[in-house]
Amino acid sequence: MARNENGQTLLRESQLSKRVKNILFIMCDQLRADYLSCYGHKRLMTPNLDRLAARGMLFERAYVQSPVCGPSRMSYYTGRYVQAHGASWNFVPLKAGEMTMGDHLRPLGVRSVLVGKTHMRADLAGMSRLGIDPDSTVGVRIGECGFDPYERDDGIHPYSGHDPDPAYSDYLRRNGCDGDNPWEAWANTGTDSDGQARSGWFLKYSRLPARVPEQHSETPYMTRRAMDFMREAGDQPWCLHLSYIKPHWPYIVPEPYASMYGPQDVPPVVRSEAERRDPHPVYAAMMKHRVSRTFSQDGVREAVIPAYMGLIKQIDDQMGVLFSFMEEAGLMDSTMIVFTSDHGDYLGDHWMGEKDLFHEPVIRVPLIVYDPDPRADATRGTRCADLVEAVDLAPTFLDVCGGAPVPHVMDGRSLRPLLFGQRPADWRREVVCEYDYAFQDARIELGTAPRDAWMRMIFDGRWKYVVFEGYRPMLFDLASDPDEFVDLGASQAPEHEQARQRLHEALFRWALRPRQRVTVPDAAIESVEVQPRISEGGILIGYWDEDDLARARQSFKPRFSSTNPLVRSTLDRLTGKQGVPQ
Amino acid sequence: MARNENGQTLLRESQLSKRVKNILFIMCDQLRADYLSCYGHKRLMTPNLDRLAARGMLFERAYVQSPVCGPSRMSYYTGRYVQAHGASWNFVPLKAGEMTMGDHLRPLGVRSVLVGKTHMRADLAGMSRLGIDPDSTVGVRIGECGFDPYERDDGIHPYSGHDPDPAYSDYLRRNGCDGDNPWEAWANTGTDSDGQARSGWFLKYSRLPARVPEQHSETPYMTRRAMDFMREAGDQPWCLHLSYIKPHWPYIVPEPYASMYGPQDVPPVVRSEAERRDPHPVYAAMMKHRVSRTFSQDGVREAVIPAYMGLIKQIDDQMGVLFSFMEEAGLMDSTMIVFTSDHGDYLGDHWMGEKDLFHEPVIRVPLIVYDPDPRADATRGTRCADLVEAVDLAPTFLDVCGGAPVPHVMDGRSLRPLLFGQRPADWRREVVCEYDYAFQDARIELGTAPRDAWMRMIFDGRWKYVVFEGYRPMLFDLASDPDEFVDLGASQAPEHEQARQRLHEALFRWALRPRQRVTVPDAAIESVEVQPRISEGGILIGYWDEDDLARARQSFKPRFSSTNPLVRSTLDRLTGKQGVPQ
Repeated sequence: MARNENGQTLLRESQLSKRVKNILFIMCDQLRADYLSCYGHKRLMTPNLDRLAARGMLFERAYVQSPVCGPSRMSYYTGRYVQAHGASWNFVPLKAGEMTMGDHLRPLGVRSVLVGKTHMRADLAGMSRLGIDPDSTVGVRIGECGFDPYERDDGIHPYSGHDPDPAYSDYLRRNGCDGDNPWEAWANTGTDSDGQARSGWFLKYSRLPARVPEQHSETPYMTRRAMDFMREAGDQPWCLHLSYIKPHWPYIVPEPYASMYGPQDVPPVVRSEAERRDPHPVYAAMMKHRVSRTFSQDGVREAVIPAYMGLIKQIDDQMGVLFSFMEEAGLMDSTMIVFTSDHGDYLGDHWMGEKDLFHEPVIRVPLIVYDPDPRADATRGTRCADLVEAVDLAPTFLDVCGGAPVPHVMDGRSLRPLLFGQRPADWRREVVCEYDYAFQDARIELGTAPRDAWMRMIFDGRWKYVVFEGYRPMLFDLASDPDEFVDLGASQAPEHEQARQRLHEALFRWALRPRQRVTVPDAAIESVEVQPRISEGGILIGYWDEDDLARARQSFKPRFSSTNPLVRSTLDRLTGKQGVPQ
Repeated sequence: MARNENGQTLLRESQLSKRVKNILFIMCDQLRADYLSCYGHKRLMTPNLDRLAARGMLFERAYVQSPVCGPSRMSYYTGRYVQAHGASWNFVPLKAGEMTMGDHLRPLGVRSVLVGKTHMRADLAGMSRLGIDPDSTVGVRIGECGFDPYERDDGIHPYSGHDPDPAYSDYLRRNGCDGDNPWEAWANTGTDSDGQARSGWFLKYSRLPARVPEQHSETPYMTRRAMDFMREAGDQPWCLHLSYIKPHWPYIVPEPYASMYGPQDVPPVVRSEAERRDPHPVYAAMMKHRVSRTFSQDGVREAVIPAYMGLIKQIDDQMGVLFSFMEEAGLMDSTMIVFTSDHGDYLGDHWMGEKDLFHEPVIRVPLIVYDPDPRADATRGTRCADLVEAVDLAPTFLDVCGGAPVPHVMDGRSLRPLLFGQRPADWRREVVCEYDYAFQDARIELGTAPRDAWMRMIFDGRWKYVVFEGYRPMLFDLASDPDEFVDLGASQAPEHEQARQRLHEALFRWALRPRQRVTVPDAAIESVEVQPRISEGGILIGYWDEDDLARARQSFKPRFSSTNPLVRSTLDRLTGKQGVPQ
């Protein structure tokens, strides 16, 4: 690195703007924060991710915006809270017109490319209304939440409205995994000890090895596709969203990962009998979901979690492959790497399966950021305890790519000040997570109208407060009750009433800012004294007479007259002798 | 009307769906509710509007969604609160993709057509991002907030970003009002007693008659354009937005209206010295606006208000012309007529000019609805005291045109139950009005950031409560203080604290519903049990084994199998003997 005595810092900074050229934005699906060794798992070692954390920064308190794939991802991709982007559940299309990461980065010359899953549902009705062909370049981007799809694969059962025959199916067929649905028959089916094929859809068979040869399973396949892209990418800067389907269900993994972990490696379940005594009505209804009941049965966790761990171990191994490739390709010095997840997984904790509520196993996700910028040297290998959110990634990427911030559009904030060890004094004091349970059985059981099936959580690092429509709130004190067993939502202790009151008001203030004035940037307002400019443009509001205008005119900056001499001549006429304009 | 002894009501109702075919949606600009005789004005007689009220329903408590043209109109045109549509001030384009009245009515075969003003600013950046040509049919509609423009005319100084040479200018030239800018030189300029031309921009000259011959002034011109449209409209049902520029400034009117009213006809000013003692900081800053200072000077109201009244009297006369034409054209039995305004005008009340805050003269507007449907016979000539809002019109029109309600998109509710005398028990208990004062001098004086320049009002018919960012709230008790002189925002009286607390919470509950899940209707959620359907589609979440699925399958409705036999065969296989699918 070139240095001189006086200009060292400046030189480094100017080099830097060139150095970080690409972004690799890696997302797992349904990966809990505490299932990586760098986040404290005792039996599941993830040395490649741990090494990434050692080279970058590990965020200990990273929260998603919704405990379910679709809305969480749309918040990542737009930098906006769910109340702003509106795609509040998996089957809710992100409305045509919502700006995504890709829309923000494209004008900066950066390609945003997808390999893997987004859970995006295209807003075909909106496109039709706007006269946009879904197969046009713009239409495809709207349908792929702003990404150019290098390979889209949501990894879900192909009969259910997703791509009925994804490229991965063809790949499997070319590699000896044949049939109508090789995704199911090979990648997600195991063989029992008696030679009988058993579907990975059933949790009982999670312990069986998947039939697919490991190198052809989904995670290595997607990793190779990402490397294919990097090889082909050329000189144009890119933001690659490498979005793994795993460790999301079906929970089944090929050997050697299938045998790697056993029941003895499964962490103790985090649940308490107290949680089932007089629970909050919505929580109670969710505990009755099939998946919650199943995960609460003896033996289920022991069958499922070893496979879940194997899937994560496989991801970590693939991270090793990927990072070695990038090192060899000379990309590590020019590429920011972000590793995160769209949400966690209850796995039986709190008598729940899947996600859908706001306990830590679900809304706290791993977030590791490696920034090759030398300014980030200050924090390499450190752990950040500040509250960060999924919506912070889009503004971070915009920052890295040299774009001006767009606080009129994005709810999040760039993480770069934290990465550079320059924590802003006004960093956020609460995170917010939203959930629309209109689509869940719990809503039907409770007889709640879809419009009322909203819940919002606000968490300040200690107190976690949840507001519902039509039900009492929930409150947890993570200082005295880190496992979130004691719901203080109805407690009359003054301390709890105060905490509820304070967070209630904070959530109100948050709710008053559903960023929708997206067509005018704050900076445009700040840079223009609108009212004088209106007068300078010839619209005269509140002037009594000619003298009044003549006096005001002394401070006018005749901006318009440079482009429209009629304005100046009109103002001249109005402040001089009156006469009929010709 | 055909009648029989048993089926009378049914017959009338079935006829009705054919009877109300068109909608005439008339809007004035800056017309206070209390400047019509049917709303209590003592000197300004508006017999034509009074007659419309006698044939329809007069809403005594109709409120706009924002005290300024652009956002208020966008709420009328979308049926959505400002926090939902985001066009929070005049220069803020309604974002491409927002659904308007026109978008909702078009699929029902109804043309939405504009004659006059909308204050719409086209979202050119959004259209460019979406690849939409602003000159295409879709592009023009996006640029005209969903209307097909028969004649767009915002009636504002032509140098300031609006159409530099509207059709009205050509019309004036063809009728002897010549020059570069006949709008200014004739329609908005008067002649002093000494023969000197004087600009209507100056309030001092409001008392002069405008130079334009009355029949060529803006209001009769636009009325004729509306009649031109009706003559040409043919059989297709229409929703015509006839949107007058007046009585908006420049406050100047031709004879005979210029001489019709004098200072003796001006209602007493509504203001109190108490209001200037220790006012709320934002209110204080707004009292310093030029227009507020001018209107607080002696003599200004007496110069301006007679012209304002003349402009309104002219509108009423034109209503007479229009309704007679419609009667003769046989349109009165098939056309709903709505008369309203986009907001009021302080006219010096409360030491203010223009609008920009939430006092009654500004946010309460006239609303008269004539519905030819016989079911509305029950309420003809009555006055409705229920709280209604600008956002209620779009749902009303959708209702009239036979469309299903869209509560996932529109914040408002159809007024038809009220018109039919069937008040819903759950009718709203509060109205909300929002203002973004980022563009006002008050923000600059206060040093508030644009993002914080929000204020929201909630009013329950008695208590009016205003929340700001960074300032104490305001509170008025209209029962004890109908003129809103006493700001109780800091009062410690228990009654006032309770009122603030209650409305604070009501506003919070309101703020939690910024309708953005616009791509999935509530009815679609209610009609589908999503979770069973997911299983029925072959995605099996939380099933332990084959027996578990076999049991659940007994209650499956195999919806998907009718279109995709693979799903049924897969479920058959999974619940029967396991085997590898081929």
